Amino acid sequence: MVSNIFKVDSTLNEPLYMQLYHRFRDAIDSGQLLAEQRVPSIRALASELNLARGTVELTYQLLISEGILIGRGAKGTFIAPMANCLRNKKSIITPNFNQDTHNAQVTSFYHENEVLPFQLGIPALDAFPLTLWNRLMHRVLRNTESVQLGYPDPQGFIGLREALASYLAVSRGVVCSPEQIFISSGYRASLLLILRSLFQEGDVGWFEEPGYHIAREFLQKMGMVLVPIDVDAEGINVHLGNKTAAKAKFALVTPTHQSPTNVTLSLERRMDLLKWANEHKSWVIEDDYDSEFRYLGRPIPALKNLDNDNRVIYCGTLSKALFPSLRLSYMVVPTHQVARFKNTAQQLGGNSPIWTQQVSQLFIQEGHFSRHLRKMRNLYRQRRQYLIDAINQVFADILFVHQQSGGMHIVAELINGQSSERFVKQANRQGIGIQSLTSWMQSNHSTQIILLGFTNIKSAQDAFELCLKLKNCYFLTQ
Amino acid sequence: MVSNIFKVDSTLNEPLYMQLYHRFRDAIDSGQLLAEQRVPSIRALASELNLARGTVELTYQLLISEGILIGRGAKGTFIAPMANCLRNKKSIITPNFNQDTHNAQVTSFYHENEVLPFQLGIPALDAFPLTLWNRLMHRVLRNTESVQLGYPDPQGFIGLREALASYLAVSRGVVCSPEQIFISSGYRASLLLILRSLFQEGDVGWFEEPGYHIAREFLQKMGMVLVPIDVDAEGINVHLGNKTAAKAKFALVTPTHQSPTNVTLSLERRMDLLKWANEHKSWVIEDDYDSEFRYLGRPIPALKNLDNDNRVIYCGTLSKALFPSLRLSYMVVPTHQVARFKNTAQQLGGNSPIWTQQVSQLFIQEGHFSRHLRKMRNLYRQRRQYLIDAINQVFADILFVHQQSGGMHIVAELINGQSSERFVKQANRQGIGIQSLTSWMQSNHSTQIILLGFTNIKSAQDAFELCLKLKNCYFLTQ
Repeated sequence: MVSNIFKVDSTLNEPLYMQLYHRFRDAIDSGQLLAEQRVPSIRALASELNLARGTVELTYQLLISEGILIGRGAKGTFIAPMANCLRNKKSIITPNFNQDTHNAQVTSFYHENEVLPFQLGIPALDAFPLTLWNRLMHRVLRNTESVQLGYPDPQGFIGLREALASYLAVSRGVVCSPEQIFISSGYRASLLLILRSLFQEGDVGWFEEPGYHIAREFLQKMGMVLVPIDVDAEGINVHLGNKTAAKAKFALVTPTHQSPTNVTLSLERRMDLLKWANEHKSWVIEDDYDSEFRYLGRPIPALKNLDNDNRVIYCGTLSKALFPSLRLSYMVVPTHQVARFKNTAQQLGGNSPIWTQQVSQLFIQEGHFSRHLRKMRNLYRQRRQYLIDAINQVFADILFVHQQSGGMHIVAELINGQSSERFVKQANRQGIGIQSLTSWMQSNHSTQIILLGFTNIKSAQDAFELCLKLKNCYFLTQ
Repeated sequence: MVSNIFKVDSTLNEPLYMQLYHRFRDAIDSGQLLAEQRVPSIRALASELNLARGTVELTYQLLISEGILIGRGAKGTFIAPMANCLRNKKSIITPNFNQDTHNAQVTSFYHENEVLPFQLGIPALDAFPLTLWNRLMHRVLRNTESVQLGYPDPQGFIGLREALASYLAVSRGVVCSPEQIFISSGYRASLLLILRSLFQEGDVGWFEEPGYHIAREFLQKMGMVLVPIDVDAEGINVHLGNKTAAKAKFALVTPTHQSPTNVTLSLERRMDLLKWANEHKSWVIEDDYDSEFRYLGRPIPALKNLDNDNRVIYCGTLSKALFPSLRLSYMVVPTHQVARFKNTAQQLGGNSPIWTQQVSQLFIQEGHFSRHLRKMRNLYRQRRQYLIDAINQVFADILFVHQQSGGMHIVAELINGQSSERFVKQANRQGIGIQSLTSWMQSNHSTQIILLGFTNIKSAQDAFELCLKLKNCYFLTQ
């Protein structure tokens, strides 16, 4: 069934134009060529396949005479609207694309072109200044020289690294040189660079329990052994970590807003954690993912700010501060590790297109970033309140909101001790993106906690209606 | 030295405005804030740090009075031109960024904003239709809706997958559904997806000797054990592979133009390779990196075209056909492996911004891709001839060109048996990007072969002058 022009030279049973004809038929049969799609011009295809023009012409004539192709003058030649009705019933493309069952737990951020109600970890997409961004992108494109089309610096574009160094110094208390910054195409790409620079397969690390399950799945897939360390009101329990796995090679923590409980790692714990790392020559990986969004009190500098012994690898991302499809994250590496990370970055390859890095640089340097964060902070404070008010109005008898000072979602508890899983499953089935704390844990403890993203709730009315819908799901599970 | 506002709440020794003042000073001392850079407005910074406006105002006044900041009315507030002269001599940022010696062999594609003479693997950047590309990008940006700012499909944008399926069917004889295609942010990202879907650390694979060293270093870094299998005039010696490591889990091959010798894998070897893979349930990873560029004879369909037993993972890239800073590659996966790859792709995360994928779709669907490839094929044929002519004119007594039918570089031999390493090292020192075949081998055989990229040679004159320069380097090594 698969056409095979490779045999052209050895067998002359079928003329070239017929072989090409069959290729087209096969491609239509199997759905690669779709109705109304334009096909290459005769000249282009002849040149591409290095065939005589007459050969391709003959093929096209044949296909046109059969009504499979349609010539539309200057517009070009197209697959006929009806072509796909010709599709072979026993097409080779009838795969079974059902998910593997052995590993179907993985949660995806991606939902075909939509944000689910209450979906976590997605910034307020409606509030992003897209017009401004496009203007900056136009400027970057206009100034692109062809030499920039070559391989980009695997460490990241120097201009963006400079802009980030300034931002980090002023806003996060992280003092570093642009040489210490590595740009990556997302948090997991950052983690990969760290793993391949510092760790071996089978190395043990502390992981917050509950903790960011996307990172957990990634690290485990990459061969790390994760020891769950409980999180309480002061953040990860360092004392417990020290008792359970003192010799761990690393600890992955979210000090500013613990993911997902939103608690802040206390100063005492910070000090203990750094002391542990220094004593055991272990590494602290700080995930500072949404530190910008704090609504009460003064912003807390990064843990990295206290890192006098250079044991912290700082990770930040533009997915939350700007938007996820940008695919830009970054990390700050201690100076004595820069050479090692550079080598790894070269081996892994630079995976970020230059333009998005250039536009992000402009966005930060020209002050739009500060303005945007300020705007979002106010917006989130408001949207958060919409949600809290709506919950209290609609089902305060069912859900109790744990107030926290920051983050992009709300932590709420089902009172009367119901477990959250059945409720969440029911809601998910209705297309509502709430999550159960249980799925953020390695252990199989059932919890009463649910997580609700508020960033994309547009109004009090919106919040109210969503809560009514959610309440319905709740009653369906009773 | 590092400012630490974290202690604000516990110690009141230093007022807030002084703490902020020191942060600025530190940032300037250490080079995060540079002369002439704009700083946030008082309002923006006060809001960001959640401080009273008066506090920030006081800090700014202090800094302005010391000549560190300069107010420029409506334009904003800037770091003074002289500010960096204030830099502390014993700044904390005086790292030693020398490369690690233990692993300094890694070759980088990246050279700060330039293409080296004879550099390999970079398409003709001057010939890329940047204006057209920008026009398509503008169209994509104009039509972007905010929902597209969320996380992109980790498998890749469906529109681009559809466009690639059509292209592959007609031009490469690879018949597949868009569901079988996975988009990645570069060849190494493709390899990572393959490794984490199909292999374990310590798995053995055949690797062409000589072979693409970037892939070799990457696979080894990822824990694969590579057995070098010699390449001869018919491509990888499958018989030898069968004798040396019959039970290998995979073979990574470049059938169309072997990398770097440019030989084509013969039909008999193709059949033998697929037979081996089927018998041992091993995988053939086909790297079809620059198959578009063939100058003699008919294009050869991909090895995947013969893969009736579904043992081939097909890898392609837009780095060579379009340009590298786009960061887009793709692979075709057998239908029965799609679910597994989908899971891995979700775990690894989608690392490609949506826009570059959308523009690439338009570029392919509207026929620009075919046109561009045709143009480049003619251009490369010409540039290749420039180089061959210039070599024959300038130092035919030293270099012998092995003629091949395709590829983006020339394979040439130093006659009189001199080894290539010293010559190449001397040329590299002069900023000339030729390579020695020796560095593409795992074994330590010295060779007489050098590799010269011709894609960015703009004219016969250009080629002639470069060859003169190269000849000089040669004589310097004698």
